[in-house]
Amino acid sequence: MRGTSHLFIPGPTNVPEEVRRAMNIPMEDMRAPDFADLTFGLMADLKKAFRLENGRVFIFPSSGTGAWESAITNTLSEGDTVLMSRFGQFSLLWVDMAERLGLEVDLCEVEWGKGVPADEYAKRLKADTDHKIKAVFATHNETATGVSSDIAAVRRALDDANHPALLFVDGVSSIGSIEFEMEKWGVDLAVSGSQKGFMLPAGLGFLAVSDKALAANASNRDKMSRCYFSWEDMIKLNDTGYFPYTPATQLLRGLRTSLDMMLDAGLETIWKRHHFHAEGVRRAVAAWDGCELVARGPEWESDTVSAIYTPEGVDARDVIAHAYSKYQTSLGTGLNKLAGKAFRIGHLGSLNPVMLLGAISAAEMALVDAGAKIQLGSGVAAAQDHYRTAEG
Amino acid sequence: MRGTSHLFIPGPTNVPEEVRRAMNIPMEDMRAPDFADLTFGLMADLKKAFRLENGRVFIFPSSGTGAWESAITNTLSEGDTVLMSRFGQFSLLWVDMAERLGLEVDLCEVEWGKGVPADEYAKRLKADTDHKIKAVFATHNETATGVSSDIAAVRRALDDANHPALLFVDGVSSIGSIEFEMEKWGVDLAVSGSQKGFMLPAGLGFLAVSDKALAANASNRDKMSRCYFSWEDMIKLNDTGYFPYTPATQLLRGLRTSLDMMLDAGLETIWKRHHFHAEGVRRAVAAWDGCELVARGPEWESDTVSAIYTPEGVDARDVIAHAYSKYQTSLGTGLNKLAGKAFRIGHLGSLNPVMLLGAISAAEMALVDAGAKIQLGSGVAAAQDHYRTAEG
Amino acid sequence: MRGTSHLFIPGPTNVPEEVRRAMNIPMEDMRAPDFADLTFGLMADLKKAFRLENGRVFIFPSSGTGAWESAITNTLSEGDTVLMSRFGQFSLLWVDMAERLGLEVDLCEVEWGKGVPADEYAKRLKADTDHKIKAVFATHNETATGVSSDIAAVRRALDDANHPALLFVDGVSSIGSIEFEMEKWGVDLAVSGSQKGFMLPAGLGFLAVSDKALAANASNRDKMSRCYFSWEDMIKLNDTGYFPYTPATQLLRGLRTSLDMMLDAGLETIWKRHHFHAEGVRRAVAAWDGCELVARGPEWESDTVSAIYTPEGVDARDVIAHAYSKYQTSLGTGLNKLAGKAFRIGHLGSLNPVMLLGAISAAEMALVDAGAKIQLGSGVAAAQDHYRTAEG
Amino acid sequence: MRGTSHLFIPGPTNVPEEVRRAMNIPMEDMRAPDFADLTFGLMADLKKAFRLENGRVFIFPSSGTGAWESAITNTLSEGDTVLMSRFGQFSLLWVDMAERLGLEVDLCEVEWGKGVPADEYAKRLKADTDHKIKAVFATHNETATGVSSDIAAVRRALDDANHPALLFVDGVSSIGSIEFEMEKWGVDLAVSGSQKGFMLPAGLGFLAVSDKALAANASNRDKMSRCYFSWEDMIKLNDTGYFPYTPATQLLRGLRTSLDMMLDAGLETIWKRHHFHAEGVRRAVAAWDGCELVARGPEWESDTVSAIYTPEGVDARDVIAHAYSKYQTSLGTGLNKLAGKAFRIGHLGSLNPVMLLGAISAAEMALVDAGAKIQLGSGVAAAQDHYRTAEG
Repeated sequence: MRGTSHLFIPGPTNVPEEVRRAMNIPMEDMRAPDFADLTFGLMADLKKAFRLENGRVFIFPSSGTGAWESAITNTLSEGDTVLMSRFGQFSLLWVDMAERLGLEVDLCEVEWGKGVPADEYAKRLKADTDHKIKAVFATHNETATGVSSDIAAVRRALDDANHPALLFVDGVSSIGSIEFEMEKWGVDLAVSGSQKGFMLPAGLGFLAVSDKALAANASNRDKMSRCYFSWEDMIKLNDTGYFPYTPATQLLRGLRTSLDMMLDAGLETIWKRHHFHAEGVRRAVAAWDGCELVARGPEWESDTVSAIYTPEGVDARDVIAHAYSKYQTSLGTGLNKLAGKAFRIGHLGSLNPVMLLGAISAAEMALVDAGAKIQLGSGVAAAQDHYRTAEG
Repeated sequence: MRGTSHLFIPGPTNVPEEVRRAMNIPMEDMRAPDFADLTFGLMADLKKAFRLENGRVFIFPSSGTGAWESAITNTLSEGDTVLMSRFGQFSLLWVDMAERLGLEVDLCEVEWGKGVPADEYAKRLKADTDHKIKAVFATHNETATGVSSDIAAVRRALDDANHPALLFVDGVSSIGSIEFEMEKWGVDLAVSGSQKGFMLPAGLGFLAVSDKALAANASNRDKMSRCYFSWEDMIKLNDTGYFPYTPATQLLRGLRTSLDMMLDAGLETIWKRHHFHAEGVRRAVAAWDGCELVARGPEWESDTVSAIYTPEGVDARDVIAHAYSKYQTSLGTGLNKLAGKAFRIGHLGSLNPVMLLGAISAAEMALVDAGAKIQLGSGVAAAQDHYRTAEG
Repeated sequence: MRGTSHLFIPGPTNVPEEVRRAMNIPMEDMRAPDFADLTFGLMADLKKAFRLENGRVFIFPSSGTGAWESAITNTLSEGDTVLMSRFGQFSLLWVDMAERLGLEVDLCEVEWGKGVPADEYAKRLKADTDHKIKAVFATHNETATGVSSDIAAVRRALDDANHPALLFVDGVSSIGSIEFEMEKWGVDLAVSGSQKGFMLPAGLGFLAVSDKALAANASNRDKMSRCYFSWEDMIKLNDTGYFPYTPATQLLRGLRTSLDMMLDAGLETIWKRHHFHAEGVRRAVAAWDGCELVARGPEWESDTVSAIYTPEGVDARDVIAHAYSKYQTSLGTGLNKLAGKAFRIGHLGSLNPVMLLGAISAAEMALVDAGAKIQLGSGVAAAQDHYRTAEG
Repeated sequence: MRGTSHLFIPGPTNVPEEVRRAMNIPMEDMRAPDFADLTFGLMADLKKAFRLENGRVFIFPSSGTGAWESAITNTLSEGDTVLMSRFGQFSLLWVDMAERLGLEVDLCEVEWGKGVPADEYAKRLKADTDHKIKAVFATHNETATGVSSDIAAVRRALDDANHPALLFVDGVSSIGSIEFEMEKWGVDLAVSGSQKGFMLPAGLGFLAVSDKALAANASNRDKMSRCYFSWEDMIKLNDTGYFPYTPATQLLRGLRTSLDMMLDAGLETIWKRHHFHAEGVRRAVAAWDGCELVARGPEWESDTVSAIYTPEGVDARDVIAHAYSKYQTSLGTGLNKLAGKAFRIGHLGSLNPVMLLGAISAAEMALVDAGAKIQLGSGVAAAQDHYRTAEG
């Protein structure tokens, strides 16, 4: 009777009622004759959500981290050189995984607040004339800093250098929410998870792969050790409509509904709505004295999450703690070097302006509680003005 | 994926997750041996929610309107005189029912915005020396105008006149939300419904009756014709733990959980929280240029719903329409003579400040959309200041 | 972790998962602009379930008993004579209600195990040349004895006598399950409830009325006192898509889904399936030494419920008690004069052969536990043979 | 409206209503301050379900297969020798995984229908005086054949040989259902999954490890490449109450409820109940002419699943197909060399005799449909006799 809690972390996101209902079912036989119809339909429609025409998708009972591992271990060999960049906690973790799995990382360090350095990538790719670099990694949306990167530019860097490296994209907090064009941008391996734009609980890792990535897997180069995340059994069974080990059928039924909702609405509509929602949050931030986005300029601003520096002297952890304990509102924490300096508002998935105005109200009160000298209502008013008049 | 819709009508109210879960069950046998335990527990705890020590409660598969009818038809006879007052759509409908069921209504017309005229009642009761008046009716909380009345004062009016009339109270939108003391105030028949303070879907009508009301039922005066709502069969079966016709078991299971939540929290805590929530809404209204409460003074202000006059020239129906279509927010409509002039914000049941700030934000935007010259964020800021600093 | 309990009472019936999901929703505004679409659709489709083309339907937040009361109080006057028959607990209760509401009952007593005596009705109607009889009541399916009656024959009796009386039918445990043709059979008032063939929880009473019944209501004859169940307000508001008091929206959403399921499957298919299911139970009963149906011949056997006499010396209450406590299976009890002599297996609503074989297994074990000298597996084998080979 | 489908595969098992309800929740913040309480409670109680006092447990968002992989990759090195046995599809897959991950498998081939050859293990362990064997693998319950093995005997074999090898146990379809004593039996790594005895949907892999296994992980021997399934990050974060990547919170909430149910009931009670349930199925099989268990003797019979040879000339695939299409009943298929020869009835998790009698009825009809010359009702009667009289 304390009402509904308010979830504004950048994932898990709010699960729509339709999806909740779709998951509230008795268990089923994952070897039933008609189960294959579910599998085939999901595979076809998940490809649409990635904007992939060729290639295929994998659905793992795992988090997005597992799908990252699958992408690497099925196409690369220990000792391979890969081009990566690091500008936030999630790109950092990806680099860490690459190193732990035995890759040689050619690393671009980037200021937190900016994203994938396409120009630097272009330079290094051009310099790599003997194609030592086997793969280029790009974090599409860095969830820790609220920064989106230009994947098409990375593709151009590869093309301009006429470089054969595979293009890996971490789309965990972007795909299904902001523009992502796997086929058009020539992405070879794209990773996502159920708990962000797909509006499901955590528990499914998605991996979409191009024909080129499939060929890399099928080549006779040594690949890394793997079993749970290996593609071979998955392909063999998926092609019959089944899975090599017990699939998370409850989540698959939820995915069926969330894909239906997404494709019915249209991805372009969803992308536009995310922009509309995000812009209201950014207007609020701009109205708060002493606060600013971690993203270093409009070209980097993410439409799925905003990381916000608190004013000088205001500990962001206090903001988050007050929001949670006094206002039943979960905000995202500042990760790693942003700890204490920034908090985050997730604005992806199933939302609407009044929900976001609630989040902004809560953040505002919590900021004041934590000592910020901002005007109550100032951010709300700026966001209201946007939501009233802009097209959503 | 348009997020959650926002329900701020004065009932049905938001059903807590715990209650939703309690109702999502397979059907059960309402004649099972252990079903009686459920019945007895509900009856005992429902009495606590009414603050009734003696007497008993009835649970009808009906709306609150049905419970009204049951109160009248089981204790009064056609042609009986009753003392009533009319100051809003629901007190009006009660008068209408009384007349249709053949009662002679001694009616006090009251300005909409005020409530039960205890002084006038006192006068008429004193004048009724031969006790023609068989019952006194008082609408505790007039949902249409956001007005609460002083039931203890009505009791005093009866006592001062040493008058034996039964005291009927409509507590549909008050009981379980604001202070109600059935035993202490000497209320004889109190009506409520599942979909307000009890935080359930509509479908159950509650009727709590004093020993005096039970005696009136058992007396050999002719009572009105009735069958579905008659107490006799209900008493006979309830006393064994069962019901005379199929009870709405799903709602009973929900009621079990909602009573647990209410009694665990404590009624005083709930009443205080409703005041805290309501006060924020009233602060917002005060901050909106040209808006004012329908309630004509703090003594009449309801902690469960606020009816708000829109500024001159602003059609309240437009406010409601914009809130619904643009902001997925349901506000209460202006009923009867308030149509077009006022809208309502329900603030009872399972809520919290951030939810209410969302509602206030939506109302604010919708007011501006409908032509009001209010400052966006003004009401929100006033409410935030209250919610940040007052004790909830 | 004790598995699923088994519900084989003749209502409430098992609610399909789809319907459960449809009811597990946040509350909604019953005055929202688009709510009317729901109302109109339900009214239109509910008429289809009654096989009614003209006239209209009412949906009350009540049990079926409330709909009975509404049927009577809106069309008849105190003192009116009605022709009724009594052959089980529910026809008995209907007679009781008629008497309590002030009707003069011209009563045909019938042996429990048989149904509406169409011949006797014909005789009395023919004799009633001055049309003192204002209404003829027929219990289509007597839930207490598992007896179905021939409503078309009652219609013929009326027609043959050229008698203008209204035809009332209690279809609580028949409509939506076994053949019922309201328009074709010239039924004027038919009552049902949510918790039987409509596969919903208890809480909605349905009343379908012919144009002739509407005319009776609109005539200037005095009608009985009524308010909650009166048609006038209901008609006025329903015609706009709304309700005169808070409707049970959760159940209405469930009804939307259950009507969709029923009309998609086709009523004829549903009727046939009920026959198929029922026949298996009857085969089992026939195989049980010393047991027999209460229904006195195939022409009376109900396809929705079987009442079964236990063998001499076996208390049916023990059978029910063992089934419940040892086998988590709810069987229907013997009501009134059948108490201790018979138990019932409800076989209506959302079922299938394996569920019914479970029920038969449980009944078989409980019979043996209670002292019956029947062969374990005998009834099951007979039913299996039917379910394997007959068309369902 | 076709009633409930019947799930009798050996996992996923039937999810109890309580657990379904616990999972039907809004998403939550997995970094919330109070989330740690959930984590710590789960870890402590999951250890109880494994009967582990020291050591620790891991919960992976994965299937049981993932937990297998985690067990191996965190403690062993490529090229290590392990002692394994193969007698069904799941022990076969485990051998396959071991080989793919680079282990040298010292393999005992065993007739399908028998289990872990403790004597042969003892012999080979004694012979391995220089302790080349680093780990001994035992499939506690082979789901494909319905065979349980004696893990305590394997422990004795190790002890008798004074052998330091780690003891790995696949308890996917045993733990939480049949006797399993991790601490007492000196098991070092035990794997399970959410979708069997834990009565949850698939999606969580459980791995319980002894202090010795933790030491093996912490030793400076080279371990296999791993990242998603590595223990190091998991331990670090779990010790603070959190997870290194987004946990499947919905399933964790379900697990909270299922562990409560399991520990409230008591593991011994659960084990006994599984035996009671299983015994009924075995009685039925014994009554079916020409059918027999795949398990080669009572010492191998599993209390969680029975694999049943169909009579000569009857294709088990037809049995399964008929059961599914005609009787809405999912039976387990014959895997690998049992394809066409055997079908399986899963009898683990949340069940009761009437559910099992339904399954037996369905299997019986489907057997006859597929051409078996068995008596309808014969198996049911045998099982009824057991369920009526044995203690459950």
